[in-house]
Amino acid sequence: MRKIYLEDTPLHEAQVKFLQLFDLKPNVEMVPTTESLGRVTAQAIFANVSMPHFHASAMDGIAVKAEKTYSAHETNPLRLKLHVDYEVVDTGDPIPEPFNAVIMVEYLHQIDEETVEIIEPASPWKHIRQIGEDIVAGEMILPIYHKIRPVDQGALLAGGVLEVPVIAMPKVAIIPTGTEIVEPTLNLKPGDIIEFNGTVFASYVKEWGGKPIYKGIVIDDFNLIQQKVKEALEEADIVLMNAGSSAGREDFTSSVIASLGEVIVHGVATRPGKPVVLGKAYNGKPIIGVPGYPVSAYLALDWFLKPLMHQFLGLASPERRKIKVKLGRRIVSKMGAEDFIRLTLGKVNEQYVANPLSRSAGVTMSLVRADGLLRIPIQSQGYEQGEEVEVELYRSLEQIDRTIVFAGSHDLILDLLASAIRKQDSSYSLSSAHIGSLAGILAIRKGENHVAGTHLLDEKTGEYNLSYIEQYLSNTPVVLINLVYRQQGWIVQKGNPKQIQTIEDLTKEGIRYINRQRGAGTRILFDYLLKQVNLSPDDIYGYTREDFSHLSLAAAIKGGNADVGLGIYSAAKVLDLDFIPVAEERYDLIMTKEFYQSEAGQLLIQVITSDEFKSEVESMGGYSCRDTGKILYKNEVTGK
Amino acid sequence: MRKIYLEDTPLHEAQVKFLQLFDLKPNVEMVPTTESLGRVTAQAIFANVSMPHFHASAMDGIAVKAEKTYSAHETNPLRLKLHVDYEVVDTGDPIPEPFNAVIMVEYLHQIDEETVEIIEPASPWKHIRQIGEDIVAGEMILPIYHKIRPVDQGALLAGGVLEVPVIAMPKVAIIPTGTEIVEPTLNLKPGDIIEFNGTVFASYVKEWGGKPIYKGIVIDDFNLIQQKVKEALEEADIVLMNAGSSAGREDFTSSVIASLGEVIVHGVATRPGKPVVLGKAYNGKPIIGVPGYPVSAYLALDWFLKPLMHQFLGLASPERRKIKVKLGRRIVSKMGAEDFIRLTLGKVNEQYVANPLSRSAGVTMSLVRADGLLRIPIQSQGYEQGEEVEVELYRSLEQIDRTIVFAGSHDLILDLLASAIRKQDSSYSLSSAHIGSLAGILAIRKGENHVAGTHLLDEKTGEYNLSYIEQYLSNTPVVLINLVYRQQGWIVQKGNPKQIQTIEDLTKEGIRYINRQRGAGTRILFDYLLKQVNLSPDDIYGYTREDFSHLSLAAAIKGGNADVGLGIYSAAKVLDLDFIPVAEERYDLIMTKEFYQSEAGQLLIQVITSDEFKSEVESMGGYSCRDTGKILYKNEVTGK
Repeated sequence: MRKIYLEDTPLHEAQVKFLQLFDLKPNVEMVPTTESLGRVTAQAIFANVSMPHFHASAMDGIAVKAEKTYSAHETNPLRLKLHVDYEVVDTGDPIPEPFNAVIMVEYLHQIDEETVEIIEPASPWKHIRQIGEDIVAGEMILPIYHKIRPVDQGALLAGGVLEVPVIAMPKVAIIPTGTEIVEPTLNLKPGDIIEFNGTVFASYVKEWGGKPIYKGIVIDDFNLIQQKVKEALEEADIVLMNAGSSAGREDFTSSVIASLGEVIVHGVATRPGKPVVLGKAYNGKPIIGVPGYPVSAYLALDWFLKPLMHQFLGLASPERRKIKVKLGRRIVSKMGAEDFIRLTLGKVNEQYVANPLSRSAGVTMSLVRADGLLRIPIQSQGYEQGEEVEVELYRSLEQIDRTIVFAGSHDLILDLLASAIRKQDSSYSLSSAHIGSLAGILAIRKGENHVAGTHLLDEKTGEYNLSYIEQYLSNTPVVLINLVYRQQGWIVQKGNPKQIQTIEDLTKEGIRYINRQRGAGTRILFDYLLKQVNLSPDDIYGYTREDFSHLSLAAAIKGGNADVGLGIYSAAKVLDLDFIPVAEERYDLIMTKEFYQSEAGQLLIQVITSDEFKSEVESMGGYSCRDTGKILYKNEVTGK
Repeated sequence: MRKIYLEDTPLHEAQVKFLQLFDLKPNVEMVPTTESLGRVTAQAIFANVSMPHFHASAMDGIAVKAEKTYSAHETNPLRLKLHVDYEVVDTGDPIPEPFNAVIMVEYLHQIDEETVEIIEPASPWKHIRQIGEDIVAGEMILPIYHKIRPVDQGALLAGGVLEVPVIAMPKVAIIPTGTEIVEPTLNLKPGDIIEFNGTVFASYVKEWGGKPIYKGIVIDDFNLIQQKVKEALEEADIVLMNAGSSAGREDFTSSVIASLGEVIVHGVATRPGKPVVLGKAYNGKPIIGVPGYPVSAYLALDWFLKPLMHQFLGLASPERRKIKVKLGRRIVSKMGAEDFIRLTLGKVNEQYVANPLSRSAGVTMSLVRADGLLRIPIQSQGYEQGEEVEVELYRSLEQIDRTIVFAGSHDLILDLLASAIRKQDSSYSLSSAHIGSLAGILAIRKGENHVAGTHLLDEKTGEYNLSYIEQYLSNTPVVLINLVYRQQGWIVQKGNPKQIQTIEDLTKEGIRYINRQRGAGTRILFDYLLKQVNLSPDDIYGYTREDFSHLSLAAAIKGGNADVGLGIYSAAKVLDLDFIPVAEERYDLIMTKEFYQSEAGQLLIQVITSDEFKSEVESMGGYSCRDTGKILYKNEVTGK
């Protein structure tokens, strides 16, 4: 049917095998120094002129002959005449002959228009910038393979270097392939996939100092793809083919490369990122077959294109900063491949804590949200919760230090909150993990987050959250603050075709329910509602089908693979679904006392209590901010 | 005569005073997502479509109805028919109705063209990417004030966001002023100063996300400058005036700003950087009067323009990484102003060591060479040698870790060596401090450098360097390796107008000698030459005038403020001076044993022993590489 197995070349081996094939002899071009920012020197650059190229005054004052001032003393002031004993000079002026020292204006006593008095002698060459003080003609300003910074441009111009030989920017052709992909559009037919990898690739090529050449989409046809790659090999230094790099029916990357040269590696032992093709064309140029999944694609570029381009430019491929972090959750890895896990990071109680994001290669948002990357070696089976591991940083430590770590129940207003915080003080950001109310509370206990969002109903008291704090956080000083009241209800297809109104309607033939995960406040609410009418989970078809957020639950209904779920009004509204109100509930924030008292905590309070935030929230519908920001409870912990 | 005193506003106070004046309401513009790299979101961005927007196969395989596969078992294989029980799907394909699971191709046993056999059931939604798995329509992709990265572009396009509202790039007008400055040229008249700050400013404006508008040089004329600033205030968001910011005769910046608005601060308590003018124009726009000296200018931009532009863009102004380092030399500071000291950094014996560069505000090269910046508080008198201080990094720690730290005698071939090392392995660099042979040896003893360059003659034995190692490095394991033999001689004006041939000629009336600093090998050689002919330092006019390198000594002669000095042939040649040979001497490298055995040490040896390096050196003239790379001595240190 199809060739289904790829090689399992270890990543490092693949990198060495591939990169050593290209001893690139880059082209050199001359650019005006004024336009050389970010370019890389193709040879050492030496000064053409000295700077200064004349003896220049370093101060505002007068130029004198030092030898003529030696008698000046407080008890024996010396008078000097303009054009005879001195000339007035400003900073940067040439020192007129025969003078050899400058006296600062601060030390002059003006007698009349032509006469000054001094009470201290000047020593020869004092306050004079001698020729070449900064740069001497012939001196090296920059070594070879140096990336030109603004200050370097200054030194080059000062040294009379008006043009610089730099390495020509590597040209990288980008060829997206696939019959199903379409240029970005909002008119999508089922099966259409928006081509976005090409834009991402082009941006990385720019960031790494190259020139992208976007070749346009080619459908899955061996001959058309081969033709386009041939064309690209003529005009570019490096060719990227996107998608079709696996071994499916219509994966032509590998065979096209084989037809135009040699396949060096097909398949690396990584998860994600396995279906990479590395090749060398008939004309000696590198071709990289980049996987179609965005996360795999990103990693493949980072592993192969980035070092290749830097090799081309004569630069060391920059490495990201690494730090040690504590894992907030257990991470399992199958042996046989290196795992690359995207993580969110935060600093909680002076300790960096990491939590894994989606491991799916198709989830672009896992890259957008990632603060760091964890690499699990081939032979490892993963790490336990609480274990310390080393991660590569995607954001600066400074940014991570100023990230408010939220974990708990999902609500759409968390997005609003994230933006409102940045609006108030953009040095801060909010990262949120939607793990459910109970898990959010447990995370507080384990010191993994600053804030938990929770709406846990105590069936006995009808009160929210308090009894859970008593149960789980009796040893952790925390503050409970209301965020919002919100409407929960049945989210159903537009027009409510299955006519769902009451909870009993869910038990009808052909109704497919979709539930939230265990520990989610919404699930606890559903269980409570079931009990009230004496129904059991077994009466609900789909009770065991779990989703992790209001939005993705609503999306499942929108997509037609469920008929109804319990969720918040805003999720229904955003996806243009119908909503039948069931209950209003209280959604609170629990924060550690330490965080509450910190600058970040006070910022958060300031933001949620602002009129702007509250009116934005209420305008979404289904929310009431009547108690937003109200402190509901502070626990007193003995010994703390 | 002139107003000569500026204010001494503490830097932090000046920053707060200035920045709080501008609550900038930035313009928003729409840009295509494909061109949004590096731009800053002007609002939170939400997905327009879900990704995927249909149920998609996550694998190559077949789509089936999960419920129909439940009976499949190893002992009871299940046969499925094409177009009845299954359809073939590739990764990314839509799942055809009514199927709800995918079985991977690896688990299929093909019976005939239309029939496959399976031995394991599929569970519902297995290997299907449900609608919105990556992004749900309505979900926030990016918060406000987020700098767009390549992956963000991918997520935006995937979420159907084809255009992004971003903050318009701040326009920054640059007005260089000064009658003496000229656009970059090689035809310099005495007094001409090449205008290079404008280029440096423009590049920083670009790096910080703005659009520079270069307004061209204006001569020192109040009305012309005022006119140009007015023009700039109309078209730009921020105006930079360069030079003229002090209080000299022709320093109009402050008065021009006062005439067009208000001067907020004139003079900050810093060294360098004091003459800054901060103002607010009649139309509310900020004007910065940037000092003329390049180092002062750079610091002023970093203190005021960088935070201002980031405030404009809604971003936190990025801070540089800080590390603790040991000071290789004592640094003295006068109280009353903060001192900003540029430093070179290196990692020697697992310890970061810092050495100050030139403190002159006019030395552009001190910025080019700087690895970091030390800030000395107003009330401090400085730091002792060996003291630990915190510095801000100008280069990455990774680059500093791979810097070979050279200190010792100056030679022009050190520039060649720096380039040759980068050519061989551009992840390494060489930083050299020209402190003289003896100081280089003492630095080795104190653990401040990896390599010292030395050519110290033992007058008794006529041998080079060895006796100095015995004297100073008896407790430090080192290796002595020859770098080169070189010609020392009299460097004189072109045509040798003073007719200098022998050392006795230096004692003639009207001959102005220029010497090297104490501890320099060349000075020791000169003393030795004097002794040989029974002359004393007192016989030489200018014996006490010291210069720190061959090149700057040659530049002093070129500039006419000395007639002769002892130096190497290459320095004379580079500056087109005449050279009268006096002696050939041996110039060696001393390296610590630890460095010698390291990867960096072996790289250095490999480079100097390469034919390419040796022929480059010899082609400069005045050098012989007959022993280059030869190990001359290794000391055995007990207990090491």
